[in-house]
Parts: sequence; structure tokens; C-alpha cells
Amino acid sequence: MADIEAASTDVNLWVQQFSDSLASGNIVNVCEMFAEHGAWRDVLALTWTIKTFENRGGIAAMLESTLRSTLPHDFAVEAEPGACEGWLLFKTQQGSCKGYVRLDGSGKALTVFTALQDLEEHQTKTGKQRPTGLYDDLDEGTWLDRKQAEQNSLGTDSQPYVLIVGGGQGGLALGARLKVQGVPTLIVDRHAKSGDEWRSRYNSLTLHDPVWYDHMPYVPFPDNWPIYTPKDKLGDFLEAYAMIMELNIWNSTEFVSAAHDENSGEWDVIVERDGKAIHLHPAHVVMAVGNAGFPRKPNFTGKDIFQGDQVHSSEYTSGEGRQGQQVVVIGANNSAHDICADLVENGAKPVMIQRSSTLVLKGETNSKMARALYSEEAVEQGLTTERADFLNASLPLRMAEHAQKEAWAQIAISDAEFYQKLADAGFQLDFGEDGTGLFMKYLRTASGYYIDVGASEMVADGRIGLRSQVEIEQLTENGVLLSDGEELPADMIVFATGFGSMEEWVKRLISLSVAEKIGPCWGYGSGAAGDPGPWEGELRNMWKPTAQDGLWFHGGNLQQSRFYSHYLALQLKARYENVEFAVYDSN
Amino acid sequence: MADIEAASTDVNLWVQQFSDSLASGNIVNVCEMFAEHGAWRDVLALTWTIKTFENRGGIAAMLESTLRSTLPHDFAVEAEPGACEGWLLFKTQQGSCKGYVRLDGSGKALTVFTALQDLEEHQTKTGKQRPTGLYDDLDEGTWLDRKQAEQNSLGTDSQPYVLIVGGGQGGLALGARLKVQGVPTLIVDRHAKSGDEWRSRYNSLTLHDPVWYDHMPYVPFPDNWPIYTPKDKLGDFLEAYAMIMELNIWNSTEFVSAAHDENSGEWDVIVERDGKAIHLHPAHVVMAVGNAGFPRKPNFTGKDIFQGDQVHSSEYTSGEGRQGQQVVVIGANNSAHDICADLVENGAKPVMIQRSSTLVLKGETNSKMARALYSEEAVEQGLTTERADFLNASLPLRMAEHAQKEAWAQIAISDAEFYQKLADAGFQLDFGEDGTGLFMKYLRTASGYYIDVGASEMVADGRIGLRSQVEIEQLTENGVLLSDGEELPADMIVFATGFGSMEEWVKRLISLSVAEKIGPCWGYGSGAAGDPGPWEGELRNMWKPTAQDGLWFHGGNLQQSRFYSHYLALQLKARYENVEFAVYDSN
Repeated sequence: MADIEAASTDVNLWVQQFSDSLASGNIVNVCEMFAEHGAWRDVLALTWTIKTFENRGGIAAMLESTLRSTLPHDFAVEAEPGACEGWLLFKTQQGSCKGYVRLDGSGKALTVFTALQDLEEHQTKTGKQRPTGLYDDLDEGTWLDRKQAEQNSLGTDSQPYVLIVGGGQGGLALGARLKVQGVPTLIVDRHAKSGDEWRSRYNSLTLHDPVWYDHMPYVPFPDNWPIYTPKDKLGDFLEAYAMIMELNIWNSTEFVSAAHDENSGEWDVIVERDGKAIHLHPAHVVMAVGNAGFPRKPNFTGKDIFQGDQVHSSEYTSGEGRQGQQVVVIGANNSAHDICADLVENGAKPVMIQRSSTLVLKGETNSKMARALYSEEAVEQGLTTERADFLNASLPLRMAEHAQKEAWAQIAISDAEFYQKLADAGFQLDFGEDGTGLFMKYLRTASGYYIDVGASEMVADGRIGLRSQVEIEQLTENGVLLSDGEELPADMIVFATGFGSMEEWVKRLISLSVAEKIGPCWGYGSGAAGDPGPWEGELRNMWKPTAQDGLWFHGGNLQQSRFYSHYLALQLKARYENVEFAVYDSN
Repeated sequence: MADIEAASTDVNLWVQQFSDSLASGNIVNVCEMFAEHGAWRDVLALTWTIKTFENRGGIAAMLESTLRSTLPHDFAVEAEPGACEGWLLFKTQQGSCKGYVRLDGSGKALTVFTALQDLEEHQTKTGKQRPTGLYDDLDEGTWLDRKQAEQNSLGTDSQPYVLIVGGGQGGLALGARLKVQGVPTLIVDRHAKSGDEWRSRYNSLTLHDPVWYDHMPYVPFPDNWPIYTPKDKLGDFLEAYAMIMELNIWNSTEFVSAAHDENSGEWDVIVERDGKAIHLHPAHVVMAVGNAGFPRKPNFTGKDIFQGDQVHSSEYTSGEGRQGQQVVVIGANNSAHDICADLVENGAKPVMIQRSSTLVLKGETNSKMARALYSEEAVEQGLTTERADFLNASLPLRMAEHAQKEAWAQIAISDAEFYQKLADAGFQLDFGEDGTGLFMKYLRTASGYYIDVGASEMVADGRIGLRSQVEIEQLTENGVLLSDGEELPADMIVFATGFGSMEEWVKRLISLSVAEKIGPCWGYGSGAAGDPGPWEGELRNMWKPTAQDGLWFHGGNLQQSRFYSHYLALQLKARYENVEFAVYDSN
């Protein structure tokens, strides 16, 4: 037997005691097993929402409220003997759960992450639970007959339980999860074909995250897939994905409006399909429209005088035919960089107008940061995408901020030469206002950065012109007048000025009052510019119940869309099946 | 240290000695390491063909001829200490290889299986070798530009190195392998869309093998896929697959003729596309047209007199609208059973005419037989599809016959009740003429069996009528006259009488002389009816060099198509890259 000192940092023993304390309802004991700054992040397992508790008081209050209705039991650990961190399996009244625990040097929990994985009474029909594919009752016809009948009736003779607005990667991933869960779902999307949202972007666009980070649920990219996916290739994949997963999609369909009926608990949604207004009555509406829905185009003086072309980055496709032309690109984030590089490749002369500082990260450094969880090496070491996602989610945001700050201090050193070249070219750099870097910036405002896949070199060597620390005074007949008095000639102006946020969709498509009731989406209350406090510690309104019954938000990059679609689908499935549960609300 | 007795059955030590003997060119020693009835099956590693050597003489002759040009080296074993079987890794002059070895009780090799896995100088671009997706030279355009340019030029401005005839699962799997290998390939298929070959079959068709056996290369079915795939669902998957793998396919294209030019080493192939004859000049033509190309429709007396409908099983779609009708189905194999069941479901009255005995296997027994290699349990135990396929291929056919004979003796006992019910209904059963069962029958003639997914119950209880041990005397105005004098009334006759074989394609599309030079395809010379000797021990002409330069055959079920497409693609890649190697020919 190990001695007591050694035993106390063994996660196997910790889980045993944790399990006993929960079973006996000894909340004081449970809380004392956490370090002073230890945190418990829960995704549905106890709280039926997504929430992080950062002190013993918060944990105690949560347990007081949730323990009796969830009754966690049947704990098991997957960890080496003596290990100070490891995997957790347990059950609640409602389902099977998974967790991950990290202990500090004194054997107290630094982080506990728990998540509902499946419902007990309504198990996911995959693996051993998959259907046979044979039908006892052929009166309802073959697989094809049934599929066609479902497609023909859904939205007319029968109502979807869930309506997903937007058929990009988010809508498709959630649609696939709900298909597997057997929840009647309809996706509406304004594009003619699945994948068109990506296809319609500028030609040179590729994903800036590496392939291992980007898999869709159920159908991972094949092993020959490139590290950085070209946008049209992603478009084709998503179209094939929708076919393989048998998703019900209405394409070329506009979401017009939605009103919630408190009495029936149903929405009255109006969509326009083939020029006809159609009423839909889903119990749940999921906004999966992304952050790139409403192009933000500043209202510059002189916009009616300028004689050349003016396009928003979302309308830009290619610099083909622009050889020798002067192009002013307003903005200095991802799109601005990609578009400038595309213009250079096509022989045009772009000038980038940088109005505020930008976080730049070398693509290979980005891949290197993700390597422990998302890489060929990780795959070889048996770290499945599912496990990587779980570990990735197990670190609460406050701790992630600390860890990122340290990582970025290292990047400043290791990539110093790269950054010096950009600074020498006059490029204004930042690592976030508190030095916490790209990923926190992404979670705070989803803007203000460029992951370099080639354009920074062009900025450094002058192929992409640069004006920084200036504002646009006005547009003139033949160009742009800057705040420092310089007038830049321009044949074309590209507004790489970003997009409106998700709550703007709610304002425009549902109502101002619902938008106000819900408050902002995205951001976690970091206090940074664009992400005001109070501290939330979780993304606001994303993938969890909102203040509006039956209204949900889904989105983010491919990794988030993959991971959280699982939990959003479980929440909708539990409601569809009338599972008894209580959402914990600490406010 | 283990004592000498124990050590001698340790595969780790065996491989060490094997490796030493090969390195020193001591062929006598190598041969003495095999049991008297031990066999060595090689797929490309040494022989650059597919061949099984069943005695020391054969092995010695093969090594005499191949050892100097392949130089196997760098052997490693993956086996528990003391284990009597295990995995083998080694290299040759041309590439990296894998193997599997089983020892008998005296430490001699019972089976050695070796296979080339990848070329040394031209490694497969997957995993760590995958492309970045970024292009240094944007002059050639984006991914989409390049893809479209390739599609537009292939077959007109540029020639495919490989032409695949047939875009079913075989053609698509091989096309995907060649795409990943970077070998310019064009697939021609007479259907309008990928997957249509499956879609055009009768409505109630599902795959009779379970999902774990049926995955396509690179893009496995998702985890919610049914155990038995409905044919239209497979059609949709194949269409999506072609899109994901970026295959170059000419649909609605007929293969008209092909002639080989010995001087140029190229084919002159004529295809008809959009009504126009187009000449193609590939170096290699792969026939992937399957066994179901030429419907075999017997020429019965009276076929012009019969007043009702006459269709071949390949033309049958559904029994819809046939309620109350008498339908005579000639044949008693898979299609006949499925069609009769479909007729029953639609209220018709089918009578099955069994002219010769049939092997019937319960679907669940079939799945049970595959369970050790292809099942959810196998997956959970870490047996990847790739490993399962490799183990499956590691047993030479003569040993497989012995093993199957024992297994079928067991099935006769365990499923006795099932078989008795069929026999009581007058159904003529067999387990193959030598009792070796379904899989050997499949490899011998690819006919003569039914994997039961429901119709046998209907035969047993009379819902499907049955006449057996009779022949068709002639068709009459209103029915069928049997050889026993009975006249069966019929509104419709279905000929479930099978299909012509692969070599028939060669006769019709290339020439009689090429067909004669090549000889029969499929079958392994078992001596059974339809598969005459001499014994070959491998499927004739399949996936390996044939007597006609540049002509190859690919086909089989989804498992074979998946596994052997890898090796066929490697052979074509080696030729494309001018790798030096010698095909071993023992004849």
C-alpha cells in the first residue's frame, strides 16, 4: 500500500471519496475536496445547462439545488494508479455522464469537468444500438419510400420539433445529431445547395485551423484530406455530408419572422420558399446563422462620389481582371489579409488600411499550439477526436486565460523575428489587451486577428501596401482620403470591416423585446473591449437554455460546432422525450 | 530465459530466424521453417502478384526467383512474448510490407501472409504525408480552378493513365485509391449518377452482409449506419463518396470497344458520351463492371406465346400493383427470394421454381460467422477494419476450405430446426458439393445461395409457393408448363436466372482472342461444378497482372473491393512511377 501522503494525490482515491460524499449528500465534504481556486465546470450532467463554478460557495449552492434530482452514482475512474488526473464515468437519474478531474499537489481538485453523454431511457442509436435496416412492416415501404414520405410531409403535413435556421457547418452538425437522436428536424437555409455558404466566399479562402480540429460529427474527413481545407472543398464535403446523414433541408429558403406562443409553447415561424410564405410551428428554433450574416459596411462620407467599385469582403470573390489596379482594403483581420494576398497574386496593388491593432499568429504556430490535442501525433497516441474535444473543454475559462497568457509570452519570444518584420513594416500588433492571445480574443469578440497563411510575408516585404494608425476621413471621386491628409488613389475599395453579431438576427427576425430579454450572444464577460462584464465564465447564450423558451443559439468554428452540437441535441432530445429534469439557475 | 522447447513456438524467435535466413539467402533454411503443409501467401511483397505457395518446393522456387530483386530486410514483430502467431513488419527494395505468421505446435510455420503496403520512393499521401492544402504557385489557381481544369482536360487534352470501366463500389473504391496515389484516372459508367447501379435494382434489396464488413476505403459509414444497408441508401452514399474523394467520372457513358497497341503500350478505347464517340488512350484498363452486367435469360420455348409480363430480376423493381396476381419466379437464389418476399408484401402470389439445390444461411448466422473480425465487438477490441481485412486474407484457400467445412457441420446442427422447416416445405438444400459452405461457393461461382433476411420463413409457411426438382418445359399462353406436367398459371414471369460472367465483357468489348488469352475470371480451380481445375489457390485474374498487358479485373463484394483496391492501386502506381520490379510467374 502507498503511504497516506502519496495516496492523497491519487485521483482514484479522490473519486472514491467524491462518490461517497455525493451519495451521502455530504455537500460540505464535497466542497472541501476542491482547492480554494478549484473549479467545477458542468455541461448538463447536474445543472442541465452549461456553467462553471469557481469557488466552494458556488459549488455548494449548485449541489444543494441539483443533487436530489440528479443523484450521481455508479462512479468509475479511468486513470493509472497514483495518477493525479484522469477520466470519470458515472450515472445520474437522467443518463450516463463522463468527466475529467485534475488534482493539485495537496490532493484537492483543481478542475472537475462533468458532462452528460447520453440519456438513460433514450440511448443514442449508434454502435450496438444502431438500427438493423430491415423493416418488419413493409406497408410503410422501403427506406426510400419512408425517406421521401418524411421529406414531403415535414413542414406541411407534419411539423418539425426543431427548426434550425442556417445550414452551414453548425446547422448541419446539429441536424445530424438530431437525426441520430430521432428528433424531427428541419433545416432552412437561404443558399441553393448545402456548402454554398462556403463556396460563395472569396476564392482564395482556406480554413485557418488544421484538419484534425475541423472534423464534422460521425463522418470525419478522410485520411488524405489536406491540413488546411480550401473553401470549395469544404463546400463539397458539406453537401455530401447532408446526403450521407439524410438531413431534411429546405434550400433557397429565407427565414422571415418568428413569434413564440406562450400558451401552445410553439413558434409561428414564417419562411419564404420558392416565393411562397410558409408557416412552420416548431417547438424549438435554433439560430445557427453564424457571425457572418450581416455585413458591417461603414457609412463613409463620399460613398456616393467614389467612381470605382465598392464591395464588402463577403461580396469579394477574386482579384482576377484587376491587374495593375489600385485597391484599398479597409480592415486588417483575416479577410483583409486573405483578400490582399489574392489581389497580389492577381497582379493588383492592394493597400491595407489598419485602423486598430491586430493579433497575428503564424499558421504553423497555431497548429503547434493545438498539437497536443489535434494532430497526427495525437491520433497516433490514441487521442480520438472525441477525447481531445473533452479534454479541451475541461479547462475553465479563467484558467485558460492564465495558461494562454503564458503561452503567448513564449510565442512573443519564439516568433520574435516574424513579429519584428511586421513591426518594421509599420504593422500594429497586439496579443489581446491583457496578453491572453488569439483564442481568448476569439471567445470574447470573434474578431481582431489573422492566422497567417502567407499574407504577412507580403505585408513585411511591401507587396501589400500598409497604412496604419489612420482613419478614413472620406471617400473621394478617385480614392480614399485618410485622417493624416494622404489621399490614396483607388480603382476599388474593399470593406473588410466585419459582420454584425448573432443577437442582431434576433432583433431583425424575431423582435426587439426578445433580443433585449436574451441579451448579447457570445463573449464571456471578460471585461475586455467588446466583451463587457459581468464575468460569466461561459459563452453567453450559446448551446444552452436562453431567457426565451424554445430559442437556442448554435455556432462557432468547426470544433465548437462538433462538440457542442452533441450537448444541444441532448437537451432538445430530453425535451422531445419529456425527460424529467431541472435547469439550474443561479441568478 | 524460456527453455528451448517453449522458445521454439515463439513467433518472435521464428521471425528472427526467418529474417536471418532470408538475409543470408539461405533458402533451404527458410523452407525448413515451414510445416510440411504450411503455406505462404504473398500479395506483391515478393512476387509482385497474388499467389499462394503450398509446399516447400513452391516456396523455394519463388525465393530463388524473387529474393535478389526484393531483398526483404528490417524485420520487426508485433506479438506477445511466447505467442505462436503475430504481425510482421519488413521492408523490401521497393517498399514497406506487412505480414502475419501462424506457427504450429512444433514451431513450424503453418501460414505466412505477406503483403506490400506502400512504395518506398512514392509514399501514400495520407496521415503525416497529407498535402497542406496551400499552394505556393497561385498561377494555376485555387483548388477549385485546378479541380475543374483537371476534369475538363482529362480524356481530351490529357489522357488518363488508368481507365476504370464501371463506377459501382469497385470502380469508386479503386478510383479513390488511385486519386490518393496521384495516378491520373478516369472512371466511365453508363448510369446517369454514381450510385444509380444500386438504385436501379429491385426496391426491397438490402446488403446481406453486415455494416462492419462493408465500409468503403477512407470514408467509413457513420456510426448510426444500419446493419443491413438498404440499396438506395448505399446509392446515396456512393454518390456522396465520389464527391468527397474528388473522383473523375464520366457518367452516362458507354464503353464501346478497346484494342491494345503492343508498340505504344496504350489502349485505343472508344466510349460513347452524350451520343458522341470519344477515343481514349490509357495505359491501363481496369474492368470493374461486376458480375451483374449481362442478364442471363434462358431461351424457353413459348416465350413469344406467353401473354403476361416477362422480366429478368435485374429489371424487376417492385410488386406494387400486383395484388392478387400469380407470379412465377424462376430461380431460388438471393434475387429470387428477395423478389418473392417483395411480391408477398404487395399481396401477390409468387411461386418459386427451384431447378437445383440452394445453400441457405440465416442472416444472423452469417453475421455471427463474421463476428470475430467484423462486428461492434471486434471494433471495441481494437480490431480496425484494416486489421480485420488483413487477418481475413491471411488464411490460404485450402485451409479456408477445411475451416469452412467444420464450421458448416456446426451450422447444420445449430440451425437444424431452420433447415428442417425448409426441407419440410420441399426446398432442396445444399452446403456446397463438398460441404464447404457459402463463402467457398461465392469464391467458386458467385452463385447458388441465399442469405436469409426473411424470405425463408415465407417459403416454410407457404406464403411463397415452391416447386422444386422440376425444369421448365415451356411457357404457355397463360403460364408455365413444368417438366412434371403441372401447368402453373402466371400473370408475370420473373427470370431470377443470374448473370453472365466477367470474361463475357472481354469477349464483347475487347475481342475473343484477348478473352481466350486471359481465360476465365473468378473461381480458384476448386474442381467444383462451374469452377473447373486445375487448382489455382487464388481467384483467377482478379486484382493481379493478366496475360494481356494493361488489362486488369477488379470486383467482388464491398469487403473484397475495399481490400484488394489497395493492392491493385499499388501495382498501377508502381507502373506509373516506373518502379523497378519483376512479376513472379511460376508457369
